[in-house]
Amino acid sequence: MVVYGRNPVREALRGRRQTQVERVWATERASSEPWLAGVAVEVAGVDAIEDLCGSGDHQGICAEVGGYPYADPGRLLIDDDALVVALDEVQDPQNLGAVVRVAESAGVSGLVIPERRSAEVTPAAGKASAGAVEHLAIARVGNLANWLATAKEAGAWVYGAAAEPEAVPYDTPDYSGRAVIVLGSEGRGLRPRVAAACDQLVRLPQRGEVSSLNVATAAAAVLYGILHFRGDGVDRAT
Amino acid sequence: MVVYGRNPVREALRGRRQTQVERVWATERASSEPWLAGVAVEVAGVDAIEDLCGSGDHQGICAEVGGYPYADPGRLLIDDDALVVALDEVQDPQNLGAVVRVAESAGVSGLVIPERRSAEVTPAAGKASAGAVEHLAIARVGNLANWLATAKEAGAWVYGAAAEPEAVPYDTPDYSGRAVIVLGSEGRGLRPRVAAACDQLVRLPQRGEVSSLNVATAAAAVLYGILHFRGDGVDRAT
Repeated sequence: MVVYGRNPVREALRGRRQTQVERVWATERASSEPWLAGVAVEVAGVDAIEDLCGSGDHQGICAEVGGYPYADPGRLLIDDDALVVALDEVQDPQNLGAVVRVAESAGVSGLVIPERRSAEVTPAAGKASAGAVEHLAIARVGNLANWLATAKEAGAWVYGAAAEPEAVPYDTPDYSGRAVIVLGSEGRGLRPRVAAACDQLVRLPQRGEVSSLNVATAAAAVLYGILHFRGDGVDRAT
Repeated sequence: MVVYGRNPVREALRGRRQTQVERVWATERASSEPWLAGVAVEVAGVDAIEDLCGSGDHQGICAEVGGYPYADPGRLLIDDDALVVALDEVQDPQNLGAVVRVAESAGVSGLVIPERRSAEVTPAAGKASAGAVEHLAIARVGNLANWLATAKEAGAWVYGAAAEPEAVPYDTPDYSGRAVIVLGSEGRGLRPRVAAACDQLVRLPQRGEVSSLNVATAAAAVLYGILHFRGDGVDRAT
């Protein structure tokens, strides 16, 4: 698969997730960027790069990489304070990428997406994530509700973000220990079986005339909230 | 000016901000949507609608409206718990629209943007805001640093979101009373004169490998945080 754009290629090169970078193409100009020092770059024209990646949004650079290395879902909840985000049928790759960027910035343990009716980690999602797909553990599961049941058996508490009146304000729980936060697709919210698999539904305050946040901004509000509620709002030493 | 897409047209029709809706065009199919009952809709083909609005992203509907009714910046800080967002040179209309959607959902008092080197409230920004531009008071000011000084004279405390180490964790202040939160453009942060005009710089925890949130997700994290710190996280009765 061909990833494109400055951040995605850079993150593939420096990523820790063993994406295999096979070839890199760049325009004359892009090829001289300092972060490409030591990388075997093949110089190509703008049109050739657009042909290679199938998008005009390449910023003069693209790379052939191996298939996306999905994580093992069973490994995301190992830490006793693991925090995992699960997405219920988010189908837009831009939204998936934007959520990945937020989740990675917030330092979560990983992201779980269903195998069906969900955007996958495509180059477009990688571009929208600003390269964060290379750093976040992302796992696919056959059935999200079943996986949530497994997560509960592994000691996790499962929170579902919902707009329903029976949901508690999101700043009520303390989110300690292993936690999974499930976010639904824009507009439709959580599927009933997924909502039923949650221990607790939580909701953000709605204070405007326009109904809802999109999934990435909702993720930002909830995840940074959880870091604060956990007393975890400190920078991570890297 | 011609706004387009389902949400922007609907919000222009039901908006409280006195945007004058002059004409509405829709495809046969879109014209039968229930929320258009009682509206004088002119039926037009897809190509004609695309010509009218200059975008293919119109969902079968567009409307001719008056110029965007910017708010008076002096009126945004009247309430003694007013919360205003100021954007320092955010130039991408998609980002401006996304911030407007977040700010409106969080129920802030208004948004301030500079007249120069900033995206304006264009139809593209309106589309990205899901129509929230029709409900949020947005004001333009000649010089943002000077306006922040005026806001301080009016009793507001001015917080600047920054990544600098000297910034305090964003969950330290209590954000009570009149408050302005200034967000910078992606990548560049706040200009020095704008940062210097703030009473306090605040920063979100950075816990990932990829450096930063985009301005809309940063706005969501900070604004929903402020609602919580203020004890304001309740739905507003409308």
